[in-house]
Formats: sequence, structure tokens, C-alpha cells
Amino acid sequence: MNNADFEALTRVLLGRVFLELEASGRHVHVTAEQAKTLFGHTLTPERPLSQPGQFLAKERVTVKGPKGEFHEVAVLGPERKEAQVEVSLTDARTLGLSAPIRPSGNVQGSPGCILVGPKGQVGIHQGVIAAQRHVHMSPQDAKAMGVQDKQVVKLQVYTDRPLIFEDVLVRVSPDFATYAHLDYDEANACGFRKGDLGRILS
Amino acid sequence: MNNADFEALTRVLLGRVFLELEASGRHVHVTAEQAKTLFGHTLTPERPLSQPGQFLAKERVTVKGPKGEFHEVAVLGPERKEAQVEVSLTDARTLGLSAPIRPSGNVQGSPGCILVGPKGQVGIHQGVIAAQRHVHMSPQDAKAMGVQDKQVVKLQVYTDRPLIFEDVLVRVSPDFATYAHLDYDEANACGFRKGDLGRILS
Repeated sequence: MNNADFEALTRVLLGRVFLELEASGRHVHVTAEQAKTLFGHTLTPERPLSQPGQFLAKERVTVKGPKGEFHEVAVLGPERKEAQVEVSLTDARTLGLSAPIRPSGNVQGSPGCILVGPKGQVGIHQGVIAAQRHVHMSPQDAKAMGVQDKQVVKLQVYTDRPLIFEDVLVRVSPDFATYAHLDYDEANACGFRKGDLGRILS
Repeated sequence: MNNADFEALTRVLLGRVFLELEASGRHVHVTAEQAKTLFGHTLTPERPLSQPGQFLAKERVTVKGPKGEFHEVAVLGPERKEAQVEVSLTDARTLGLSAPIRPSGNVQGSPGCILVGPKGQVGIHQGVIAAQRHVHMSPQDAKAMGVQDKQVVKLQVYTDRPLIFEDVLVRVSPDFATYAHLDYDEANACGFRKGDLGRILS
């Protein structure tokens, strides 16, 4: 076995055990109509994200809550059917909102806020959530790791301040690349640095 | 066994297994000399903290870093031999400082900052740390839970976003009441609410 083969095999074997962590900063998803109100046009991709088809937009917004606001907040594309503002619980406190911990897309009954762009503003009556920590997984990796869509697992992270996250939601889709997503409270609590790995505990 | 006896027994048994969590916000310890510079006098107790003899002072300071500052930061007493500024990693980023994760009192080589009080200001050349998560424990509770001073343990927390903290430092002293201390990154990462309990894993 030559070095390249050995490296490839190692990579495959490691990939059955470990997955890469990513920290998601506060960000906003908007509808196409809201994008037009805020920016005068739909979203412009700036760079792709780890999840296929998803991108960081060039556009930025201000997110206003009853007690505070954040400027220059990232907007992720493509546009969605409903706005969603993903914040950490620390952020929510700054905004003065009580953000529930929810899987992405599950915004029913969550608080609203005001989004301000260079061309206009939009009030959303719900959509501010703290994203439940989750793992995106391709069907192949899910099979290799023995987990299924919507399964709730423990995730051990090999970081500066190691810990084991419980209640981690697994999402499996052919559209997903395999990454565990933490918010910045969680990333700081475990001392995350880019490239850090985790492992799903059975 | 009457109800009061039953309750007392239950409390004792639970106390061998569970301990209460507390979240520590950003705070400052100062020397008596620094207190005089900042406030014109030594610290005035406002209310006692859970650890015997420790108190929240009436005095507040501004903590200034190269990139940002926090106003109205809590000062804890009594005065110490050396200043210490305990922040979360989120706070450190706001200040523009790289705070190492350290046990309290271990500030060698950590970054400094500027403290501003109503009567003056003090530059400290080191002392800004993110406190390593830790458990304060009375000798009796340590014996009951089978742990020793300076032992590093795992702490399972029964919170809204449950997880298991690794690398938790146990400190045992007759001066301590038994509480696990988290910073606000950690508290938010586990969805801590006042009164939540944890358990040391063997």
C-alpha cells in the first residue's frame, strides 16, 4: 500500500468515527420578498457554506429587539419560505428576547424582531430561535455511524474544554455534508477551534 | 418516620448524589490598594455569595480592553492579594483579549486590562482569565461523593440542554459550600436555570 492509499484508507476509517465541528454565528434567513424590501434585490452569494447549495450572502442586516440590536448580521441564502433569525442565548439576552431552543424551520410561537437593511425594514412576528445543536449527515455517513434521521444522540467533542453534548439532533439528507453545528455559547463552552472533531456516542 | 424526618433524610441522600449549579457572570477581584484608588475606600458588602465569607460589593467598575469595554461589572470581595478579572470567552472577544482558561488565582502570563472606578483607574498587567469550570466542595460532601481536592471529574448537568462537562476541577475546603460554577457561555450552552442540579460522574 503506497502512502496515498494509506492516507485515503485512514481518512475513510476516521470518517466512520469522527466528524468535524462548525460554530454558527448569529445569522438570518429571509424570504425573497423580504430580501427585496431590505436590499432592493434578492440575495447575492459571497461564498459557499459547508452545506451544499447554501451560501453566505454579501448583504448584511441589523437585527433589532426590544432591548438591543446587532449590526452587520450575516444573511444566509438561498431565500426561504419564512424568515428565521438564529441567535445564541447570550445574543437573545442582549436583544431582550426569550429565544426558544428549536430545530431549524420550527419557529411557531417564537418571538419576532425587526430587520433593517439599506433599502428598508421588515418586522417579523416570529422566527427568533436558538438553534438546537445538530449534526448534518449524508446518508452514507449516517449508515457508517449507525444513526438515523431525527435521532437524538450524544456528541463527544475533542476540544480545549472537552465535554459531551446531549440532545444533539441528527439530520440525514442527500443534500447534507457531514458536520456538527454548534452556536457560539456552545462553541465557547467547549473551547472550539476550527478543525476540531467530535464523535457520536452510541 | 414523620414527614419532616423523611424530608431531611431525602435531602441527605440527594446531597450525596446531586449538587447545585451556579452561573458566574463576569466579575472582578481587586486588592485593597486598588479598591482605594478606584472607589476611595475598601469594598462595601452588598450581599453574601454562596461561598462563605465571599460577597458581592456595592462598588462596580468598567473593564476596558483593546477592542471593547464592559460597564457596571460586579466586584467581589473580600479584597485579594492580586487582581483577577473573570470573563467568558465571549466577553474576552468583546474586550479584544485572549483570555486563557485557568483555575482562579492562576493568572501568570494572562493578559491585563484597565479598570475604571468613580475615583480613579488602575491598569493591571495580568489577571484576565476565563475561569476553568469547577466545583467547590465541603470536605463532608467530597467524602460522600468520593472525590478529592484538585481531582478533575466529569459533571453531568440536568438542564434544558443537557450535557456532560469534562475537565471539571474539584476544590475541597472547609471554607467552601458545595456548588458547581459555570461561566455564562457554559450556562447558556446547557440552558442553565437557577436551581438546576448536576452530578459528578465516576
